[in-house]
Amino acid sequence: MTEVFAHPEPVDLLLTAGTVITMNGAGEVFQDGAIAVRGDSIVAVGPRPEVASRCQARQTLAYPQDIILPGLINAHTHAGMTCFRGLADDLPLEIWLHDHIFPAERLICRDLVYWGTRLAIAEMILSGTTTFCDMYLFADAVAQAAREIGMRAVVGEVLYDFPSTNYGEAANGLKFTETLIQTWQNDPLIQVAVQPHAVYTCSPELLQQCGALAGSYGVQLIIHLSETQQEVANCWQRYGASPVVHLYNLDLLNDRLVIDHGVVLSPEDQALLADQGVGVVHCPESNMKLASGVAPVVELLQLGVNVALGTDGCASNNNLDMLQEMDTAAKLHKVFRRDPTVMPATTVLKMATRQAAQVLNLQDRVGSLEPGKQADVIVINGDQPHLIPLYNPYSQIVYAAGGGDVRTVLIAGQLVLQDRRLLTLDVAEAMARVKEYAQRLGTFACQRAGSEARRSQKARRR
Amino acid sequence: MTEVFAHPEPVDLLLTAGTVITMNGAGEVFQDGAIAVRGDSIVAVGPRPEVASRCQARQTLAYPQDIILPGLINAHTHAGMTCFRGLADDLPLEIWLHDHIFPAERLICRDLVYWGTRLAIAEMILSGTTTFCDMYLFADAVAQAAREIGMRAVVGEVLYDFPSTNYGEAANGLKFTETLIQTWQNDPLIQVAVQPHAVYTCSPELLQQCGALAGSYGVQLIIHLSETQQEVANCWQRYGASPVVHLYNLDLLNDRLVIDHGVVLSPEDQALLADQGVGVVHCPESNMKLASGVAPVVELLQLGVNVALGTDGCASNNNLDMLQEMDTAAKLHKVFRRDPTVMPATTVLKMATRQAAQVLNLQDRVGSLEPGKQADVIVINGDQPHLIPLYNPYSQIVYAAGGGDVRTVLIAGQLVLQDRRLLTLDVAEAMARVKEYAQRLGTFACQRAGSEARRSQKARRR
Repeated sequence: MTEVFAHPEPVDLLLTAGTVITMNGAGEVFQDGAIAVRGDSIVAVGPRPEVASRCQARQTLAYPQDIILPGLINAHTHAGMTCFRGLADDLPLEIWLHDHIFPAERLICRDLVYWGTRLAIAEMILSGTTTFCDMYLFADAVAQAAREIGMRAVVGEVLYDFPSTNYGEAANGLKFTETLIQTWQNDPLIQVAVQPHAVYTCSPELLQQCGALAGSYGVQLIIHLSETQQEVANCWQRYGASPVVHLYNLDLLNDRLVIDHGVVLSPEDQALLADQGVGVVHCPESNMKLASGVAPVVELLQLGVNVALGTDGCASNNNLDMLQEMDTAAKLHKVFRRDPTVMPATTVLKMATRQAAQVLNLQDRVGSLEPGKQADVIVINGDQPHLIPLYNPYSQIVYAAGGGDVRTVLIAGQLVLQDRRLLTLDVAEAMARVKEYAQRLGTFACQRAGSEARRSQKARRR
Repeated sequence: MTEVFAHPEPVDLLLTAGTVITMNGAGEVFQDGAIAVRGDSIVAVGPRPEVASRCQARQTLAYPQDIILPGLINAHTHAGMTCFRGLADDLPLEIWLHDHIFPAERLICRDLVYWGTRLAIAEMILSGTTTFCDMYLFADAVAQAAREIGMRAVVGEVLYDFPSTNYGEAANGLKFTETLIQTWQNDPLIQVAVQPHAVYTCSPELLQQCGALAGSYGVQLIIHLSETQQEVANCWQRYGASPVVHLYNLDLLNDRLVIDHGVVLSPEDQALLADQGVGVVHCPESNMKLASGVAPVVELLQLGVNVALGTDGCASNNNLDMLQEMDTAAKLHKVFRRDPTVMPATTVLKMATRQAAQVLNLQDRVGSLEPGKQADVIVINGDQPHLIPLYNPYSQIVYAAGGGDVRTVLIAGQLVLQDRRLLTLDVAEAMARVKEYAQRLGTFACQRAGSEARRSQKARRR
């Protein structure tokens, strides 16, 4: 029993469930458990009879067959890319990126990102994510969409050496980011991070400027790093170092740095990340689909590195379902290491909750169900054939449940999903708007494919 | 347009949808498509205006935002093992099998298998499976459960050299199987196969007797084969041959043989399977979770082997969701081969439909939506955030959809699921009964774990 008051006290909401997985430091799980919420915070977690007897709840939601756990954290997304879901699959990485994704991205505008993000947030809430960490263009639109809906987010404008559809000349990117940081400072839901795209798209100077900006505001510095063999080979060629060592040489490795992917990491790279307290976001499904490789997550965890989980953009996944992502993460490493004991369900769930919170420097607010933390809570509908019987709640969540099993979601004490109804956004509108953009993008993609086919026919005729 | 009548004719059911994926030989997909059903069969498939104008339907179900496709085929299950879902995970294979699954299986009875199978069928229908191929004890109970519910199934009693909880002495197993074959001969939904467990549990004599029985009735012979390195090493030691060559030496390789798993296959094994027309069932999630390895599916497909997909029992998965299984299959081989172009969505969907039908010798009845075939049809609810936009229906099904997206299911022309309501079984009853069994099994497992802990404490004290 963990609680903060001894006498009956008024609370706003009492949630009760057959099983409450706290993900607290002691790994407590309560059968017939309850959570009391006041305002945006958790005030008590424990066995239902005790919690219920000590509080007078304005509203009670009872889920006797269900499993309650902390809201999931999707630590790497490009939410606006919902508009490109399934636009181009099963292609070599270079063709996918250069012939399909980059050209499509040239067509994007603030409005597309705003609506794409609203749709992504709908999908995320419906599959149990309560915090996402996003890197994309028009990050102000991402923040706006999240804030309007009541979603927790870490956002950042993607920065690189070339002009951006959003902020124009490269030189404007840092200024745009700084304004974004100032705009959202002290917001209860939105954090801003400085987000240079990658070492192959950002000069050492830009990277250092990014580091300085992140340092001066004490925010996270987030970058795609060591995602592919080719990136690492190019980095060696240009800078005579691996991407990790390259950042080390630029004095950018510290506990505010978060690297997305981290697929190709030498033992030296891994040790550096551990020594410097760098966080890593593992994106197994994206790395599998794009055939990038398998990140050395087992090794990183053994070294004490904080590893979070992310879906990546849904053009390379193709969904934002963290419950599926956990399942895949657990199974991928078992088969890759030929050891069924690595990446047990508890470890994987930690990566999607409390460890992700540490990576994003949100550990004081989210990642576990504990008094004083924000009330970011999800309820898994356990009254379904594929979730019966229930021997081990961790196993059930990681190996048997899917995004569609999320029944109810609370973010900062606000009900955003109740019995699968989204309460804080008009999902039909978001779907309709993204369909409109997709029609234009699809037509464009067809035209391009047509003109490419004609060009290659011509080439063959020559 | 594929249809069998030229003038308006009465049909029982007209299904219309935004997209109809036929999986026929020509790979036809109809935007704004329709399927007409009479009795248990499909009578027309094509563009909605044409099909609708040519038939008078007693009932019409319209799904303008949805995707219709052939019912999925789960080609390897142990349905009764739903009772063991999550009983013991993240363990070494030997400990999982010998300390948890085998002891639990000693407690099973016909009733447990019957109720476990009913629960499994509920889960399968809810996630779009319309045919399953099952190997387990009390196969008569499996057949009974499937037939009562209106589920299509290939069933078989698991046979081995030692006594069975079902049929007693090993010698009774073949007789039990023969009776089962005779009982279900000519049944419209249930087929029986002869199912020896594995080369390490069945003597060469038993395997040959199984082959002779399958041959005399013209039914499939199905066996777990080459699942682990250890199995293959043991086979070499005992028989001086790989499991595939061992079966070849016993004259058992032919187009009625189906091997489950096929993880560890030499190039010689692969060529033999191709030459002899043997079918393979690929179970990627089970092979990953138990860390068995990655089956050479890309090579097998290149050699022209028919490869189906299966979930395996849900003690090693832990669900029966074929939509997730397809996603995992596509991604696993891409990363394992470091090639994002292998196992495209079309190939994977074929493995879960028309190619699976060929493996199970059901290709004249199911596996595609074509006039004359059985009306086994599923409808995917496309009106959801994570299935928008829709550029490529194959991609959407394989990479974005999950089991929970199945809206409506038809088996042999009978509606078994409508808007997620199961119409032909009492799912609450099945859930309650399995929970009862699980309570006993869980208590038993705890007692065992306790006594093992005491034993090992004692051992340490010595």
